[in-house]
Amino acid sequence: MPSKKQLELLYLRTADEIAQLIHNRTFRAGERLPSLRRLAAERKISIATALAAYAKLESDGLIEIGAKSGHFVRRQCDQLPIRPRQRLHAAPSRVSVSSGIIAVIAAMSDRAVVPLGGALIAPEYLPLRALNRSLAGLARASLCGATYDGPRGPVALRQQLAKRSLRWQLSIDEDQFVTTVGAMEAIHLSLSAVTRPGDAVAVESPAYFGLLQAIEHLGLRAVEIPAHAERGMDLDLLQRALRATPIRACVASPNFMNPLGALMSDEDKQRLVALLTRHDVPLIEDDVYGELAHDGSRPMPAKAFDRHGTVLLCGSVSKTLAPGYRVGWVVPGRYQDKVESLKFSHTVGNATLPQLAVAEYFESGRYDRHVRKLRSNFARGVQRFRDAVVLSFPRGTRISTPRGGFALWVEMPRGVDAYTLQADALRHQIAIAPGPLFSARRGFRNCIRISCGYPFSPRASAAITRLGELAAAQLG
Amino acid sequence: MPSKKQLELLYLRTADEIAQLIHNRTFRAGERLPSLRRLAAERKISIATALAAYAKLESDGLIEIGAKSGHFVRRQCDQLPIRPRQRLHAAPSRVSVSSGIIAVIAAMSDRAVVPLGGALIAPEYLPLRALNRSLAGLARASLCGATYDGPRGPVALRQQLAKRSLRWQLSIDEDQFVTTVGAMEAIHLSLSAVTRPGDAVAVESPAYFGLLQAIEHLGLRAVEIPAHAERGMDLDLLQRALRATPIRACVASPNFMNPLGALMSDEDKQRLVALLTRHDVPLIEDDVYGELAHDGSRPMPAKAFDRHGTVLLCGSVSKTLAPGYRVGWVVPGRYQDKVESLKFSHTVGNATLPQLAVAEYFESGRYDRHVRKLRSNFARGVQRFRDAVVLSFPRGTRISTPRGGFALWVEMPRGVDAYTLQADALRHQIAIAPGPLFSARRGFRNCIRISCGYPFSPRASAAITRLGELAAAQLG
Repeated sequence: MPSKKQLELLYLRTADEIAQLIHNRTFRAGERLPSLRRLAAERKISIATALAAYAKLESDGLIEIGAKSGHFVRRQCDQLPIRPRQRLHAAPSRVSVSSGIIAVIAAMSDRAVVPLGGALIAPEYLPLRALNRSLAGLARASLCGATYDGPRGPVALRQQLAKRSLRWQLSIDEDQFVTTVGAMEAIHLSLSAVTRPGDAVAVESPAYFGLLQAIEHLGLRAVEIPAHAERGMDLDLLQRALRATPIRACVASPNFMNPLGALMSDEDKQRLVALLTRHDVPLIEDDVYGELAHDGSRPMPAKAFDRHGTVLLCGSVSKTLAPGYRVGWVVPGRYQDKVESLKFSHTVGNATLPQLAVAEYFESGRYDRHVRKLRSNFARGVQRFRDAVVLSFPRGTRISTPRGGFALWVEMPRGVDAYTLQADALRHQIAIAPGPLFSARRGFRNCIRISCGYPFSPRASAAITRLGELAAAQLG
Repeated sequence: MPSKKQLELLYLRTADEIAQLIHNRTFRAGERLPSLRRLAAERKISIATALAAYAKLESDGLIEIGAKSGHFVRRQCDQLPIRPRQRLHAAPSRVSVSSGIIAVIAAMSDRAVVPLGGALIAPEYLPLRALNRSLAGLARASLCGATYDGPRGPVALRQQLAKRSLRWQLSIDEDQFVTTVGAMEAIHLSLSAVTRPGDAVAVESPAYFGLLQAIEHLGLRAVEIPAHAERGMDLDLLQRALRATPIRACVASPNFMNPLGALMSDEDKQRLVALLTRHDVPLIEDDVYGELAHDGSRPMPAKAFDRHGTVLLCGSVSKTLAPGYRVGWVVPGRYQDKVESLKFSHTVGNATLPQLAVAEYFESGRYDRHVRKLRSNFARGVQRFRDAVVLSFPRGTRISTPRGGFALWVEMPRGVDAYTLQADALRHQIAIAPGPLFSARRGFRNCIRISCGYPFSPRASAAITRLGELAAAQLG
């Protein structure tokens, strides 16, 4: 006869296996689960163990007791896709998102909080041990750090980036790169290089809040171009906006834009660049998620269609290798002199050693292997988070179907206020990012972004269940 | 009988010792040196060796053959002090220095060039081996770098800075620091926090060109307040400017301002803060040279007199430990929220590991020992560079007498154009920084800054001699 301990393991394993089947959608939302008797027979366990397993699943919020009898996979919301928006407000808006971002940032460094707010990645997904070892070796072997980098950053890194650009279906010379403190500095410098205060900038809607904050700080105004949850920025609406109002720059993230995870087709990328070129508007392309296709492909940046040097391509290793290394870059095209000059007056240069460690990691050939694994972690993780939202959130909730990256965009019924949900969730030690942060016009009041950079743990699962309850509570 | 090799060493040693006596001013400019016979007798060397020593000194430009006979210490310019300027142009000027800075930056990374241009420090003066070892240890022991720092930077560094602030005669809490990518980012963020495009900012004249470039890039205008070469910004003129024109911020470097090396007295610091407070103008205080007093003292920052949180104190380790670590900070006072928000949108955070290595170095207690040595290196080095300028530059040249730091400001006769001199010097592989870069109004056309962060080597000595010749050639 099995010991108490073994029995305990047994019911937990059974519950876990059924949870897997639910997440895999072998059992669909609303479906009836096997009876206790059948489950016990199939698994060769006692009825008591089967009952304990179902009780666990019920307390986890994955299943429920049906009105008549039996256990059912809990169904809260259907898998409604995000509806594309088609309303364009061509008048540029002053931006004011800064105050709301503080709560998101503050929660990022609190380990007691379930990290679904900031776009953070689980340390176990990142090759920090290898990278840090490489950095340690470089530090011991040299007097690196005694002087400033040249205006473009260390040539060792730029050479590796030049080589990598071939995989992006580009061929960028090492001297066309300027390294930056993450992609955020790259975007900030690019915006500074091509605009003056008061200018209007076209952005995706929703858009990454850090971008909106940069627009705010630079005294620019935003024209929000609705983005389709699967295809990205709506180019017809962009065209209308370009005709309606003088726009000085466009910032877009055609590859897996944050927060929607949309992927723009190559045809649309070409059209985007052509359209902007026709209106003499530079494109600042944020490609930080470009490596993170869930299907393993590496889509090309819109920069590949740039014939006149008017696309400023921004990238970093913050979403693939090491956020805390602060290694990014920009390929500024015809704005290179301006960007180099701005870089000097902003930060002079980057810390040298982290850049050399990243260069060494690229050179070692381990990067591609690592990114393959990371991609499949995210593909699986995002799917499981998504399933959990489907199971837990109120009816009428819509969810994005990201093609890459690790963000989920959740549009709840109108009656749910994202700021209230953020505050309620924080009281339960759960961080999320409220929708209005992703909009200059403070739209998306009933939306949230859920960051899925950490594994879908029992803790994360419970957090999603709790979020669903809190959202439902707002609906009364 | 001594070998040929020994003889060679003998004449070189003799020349070197006499050079020392000249640099020490035991022999003053214009003074007659001992005759060959006397020198030979005193040193117990042959006449031929004495002759060879004098020939070496002559070719080094330190001595000359007199009109009648005998050897004399070469006198070119007298030790004229920099004349304080008293003219104030209270109307704010648009700034445009960026283009001129590029040549200075480009020359910084070329090892073939004698580095008298950028404010670089000789690697052998910096404890990079110890710092890098510390960084390597931290990298091996942790998964540092997997995530972003909190909005203020790592607490380990801020704690050390809080402790160090006691030595600045301040007592700053760790939570009042925000770490930045060097002091340049600190100044940039501070300017962004307290101004809007078009605002006027009071700056010292001359002022560090990186500051002027930041003012240019932010669309601000500058009001240049003449600075006294020994006492710093002229507070009477600042007061006049504050009455004459609306000024939104003041940037000053009371401790060993770059390029003059002036030190403002504590009384004047107090007056500066009081004056600005009365006009409701925040002070951005650049204290990067504060540790580098030639007499070994540590003057307090003006922040010590701040009663209302309106002084934003900026610092870094770039002039004392490791420029390439890019570790700086700001104590933003009442502007803390704004600065933190700006920091996030500019660069999100710093690279983590270099900051932790600096924190560890501070904690180890080695920092103060190191800085003592560095200070005395700079005190001696600047003095030798200064003597060389006195010996080599045309009559009528005026030279600063820095109280700290490692810059020399040289005001040549009116007929010398600094840009021409910069171009001529670069053809001889010598970098300098032309005076107009230090002025929004492109003043100081006959001035240059000579950076003395490298030892006064024979190569440096020859470069100063060459610069003197090139300047003299312009006078015809």
